[in-house]
Amino acid sequence: MVALLLVLGRRKVFGNRAPLPHSIPFVIVGAGILWFGWFGFNAGDGLRADGLAAQALLNTHVAGAAALVVWLFIEWVLTRKATVLGAVTGGVAGLATITPAAGYVSTVSALVIGVLAGAVCHLALRLKDVFKYDDALDVIAVHFVGGVLGTPAVGFFGSREINDSGHDGLFFGGGGALLGHQVVALLAVIGYSFVLTLIIALLIKWTVGLRVDPADEDRMDEVEQGACAYNDDESVTGSTSVRPTAGS
Amino acid sequence: MVALLLVLGRRKVFGNRAPLPHSIPFVIVGAGILWFGWFGFNAGDGLRADGLAAQALLNTHVAGAAALVVWLFIEWVLTRKATVLGAVTGGVAGLATITPAAGYVSTVSALVIGVLAGAVCHLALRLKDVFKYDDALDVIAVHFVGGVLGTPAVGFFGSREINDSGHDGLFFGGGGALLGHQVVALLAVIGYSFVLTLIIALLIKWTVGLRVDPADEDRMDEVEQGACAYNDDESVTGSTSVRPTAGS
Amino acid sequence: MVALLLVLGRRKVFGNRAPLPHSIPFVIVGAGILWFGWFGFNAGDGLRADGLAAQALLNTHVAGAAALVVWLFIEWVLTRKATVLGAVTGGVAGLATITPAAGYVSTVSALVIGVLAGAVCHLALRLKDVFKYDDALDVIAVHFVGGVLGTPAVGFFGSREINDSGHDGLFFGGGGALLGHQVVALLAVIGYSFVLTLIIALLIKWTVGLRVDPADEDRMDEVEQGACAYNDDESVTGSTSVRPTAGS
Repeated sequence: MVALLLVLGRRKVFGNRAPLPHSIPFVIVGAGILWFGWFGFNAGDGLRADGLAAQALLNTHVAGAAALVVWLFIEWVLTRKATVLGAVTGGVAGLATITPAAGYVSTVSALVIGVLAGAVCHLALRLKDVFKYDDALDVIAVHFVGGVLGTPAVGFFGSREINDSGHDGLFFGGGGALLGHQVVALLAVIGYSFVLTLIIALLIKWTVGLRVDPADEDRMDEVEQGACAYNDDESVTGSTSVRPTAGS
Repeated sequence: MVALLLVLGRRKVFGNRAPLPHSIPFVIVGAGILWFGWFGFNAGDGLRADGLAAQALLNTHVAGAAALVVWLFIEWVLTRKATVLGAVTGGVAGLATITPAAGYVSTVSALVIGVLAGAVCHLALRLKDVFKYDDALDVIAVHFVGGVLGTPAVGFFGSREINDSGHDGLFFGGGGALLGHQVVALLAVIGYSFVLTLIIALLIKWTVGLRVDPADEDRMDEVEQGACAYNDDESVTGSTSVRPTAGS
Repeated sequence: MVALLLVLGRRKVFGNRAPLPHSIPFVIVGAGILWFGWFGFNAGDGLRADGLAAQALLNTHVAGAAALVVWLFIEWVLTRKATVLGAVTGGVAGLATITPAAGYVSTVSALVIGVLAGAVCHLALRLKDVFKYDDALDVIAVHFVGGVLGTPAVGFFGSREINDSGHDGLFFGGGGALLGHQVVALLAVIGYSFVLTLIIALLIKWTVGLRVDPADEDRMDEVEQGACAYNDDESVTGSTSVRPTAGS
């Protein structure tokens, strides 16, 4: 992601205004379906329908919900508003952060990890102001920082009482060995992903190109697809008063 | 719910016009996801994937579908229209009503319960006109009346042939014992819920407050969230003709 | 479907312009939920959660994805655009085509079937231009042609190594016997469906009628439901600038 940001750069609109979601209702529908799918992702990975799968599902839900609440609370403290977009972003931050640990920690640990996810990922939004990158979905703050937080979390909260194919973490009598391994794994994944994404992005840039013509950037649907997201067909909407057509 | 209505009161807009759903397509998407989730709710409660779970899932689907059809039929008889909103409301009435009985009755009983749910919950819409309460989602008619109908229904339709951990109801040779227990349970739940909701609602009212400033009631998104549900970003919609911006 | 087209005829708007989807975002939401549901349809039919169910699920996904990619590629070759609507249509073509074979073929065979589905069903769009029928969802090209392609596909790609309750197809050493049976079955299903749909459609036409009054065709929501898909309630949208009301 970081590599891609470096190669791709920012959109033209960046800086003029915050890129607001086009439709908050669609954000909620999408986030709800994503959350549901995350149960399959975290609890289905063991390919078994047993108690551990149930624990992973519960951990996923608890961490997502905790991060959602914390995110809203921070928003409310800072601005006296609590937004739907914040709820969704916080929830996804919790889901992303618990993922490495979902099958290895207790429900209480998942709650703590979710609370940390909400606080740390919200703080990570500031990175955007500092480094001036264009990240409409806050992938850095939510998924990258969430992963950076969640991977070592296994080293702290891992418990063989939950999953005896794992190891005990620092807080559960296992010493720092697992934590060390998790940090090494994290750095390896970051390095690997950065280098390979950079290579792939540069190859695309030098061949078919990564960006559209700047003049087309405001009308991508039209240029790339020859289509509009919405079409006003009076026989469909049943009323001309609701969505005026171009000719009205 | 009743307690909450008493404490909360009505919205300002109430009475001027019926509170129409903002977007029927979203109503359908939401109801479809809800219906799917109800399978987990009713058939997953036994925490087993066996024949009884399948029976509960089938009962849930049959009752929801039956109530949907009955609701549309009543609408059509009364007004010569059959609405999508009616279909959704009727379906949810059937789902709510079958819930107590889903794991204890036969498919034919579920069909009868669904038909009753469609008819009785539609009739219960009149309560709104009589008592003048503001219930945008018809929670009283659909969920409260549905529950009042469905809880004793177990006492009539319960069958040990379906679930031998249950009891036979009045129509299946079990006498009135189960029905009596169901009615007592229903009254206990209503009393408990009413008193506790009243206490919680009053505590909230006397501390942080239950209602927004009347002047803010028409612009809740803005006041509470500092956000709009829809944002017109031409680079997203690809066309200026479809959704005019504030400046156009 | 063909029988229904013959009896029902075309919409008034047909010919004036291509019937564009009202909202592409809803097309995506619907297609995504449909795709997810197709897993239950193809992989759940055996009523068992075993390796064969997993193979059927994988085949379903692979064929849908392959047809989606092929469809977009054909679109891009022909028009230099790749549309969301094309992606969705291609994906559903792959899902429909793999359905008869999902539980009987290998993953590689599913990939080949998906590629064929994308190419053949896209070609079948031309039938619409030739026979001038009104088929807003391209049910003929996607589902009928997909079924015509997928049913004999079992006769080519069927493999007892995948499902030993099936038979080997032509490409897997089973000779032409299975293929012959599949073709006979296909013709039988087409004949049966055509005749029965024709009878049902004519019965409806001669009794309650199949079409609305031509004058009402542009305002079906209003006439049939007395409702609009969208209602502008300022207290809901939070802003008057986004969706103007009738009076503005």
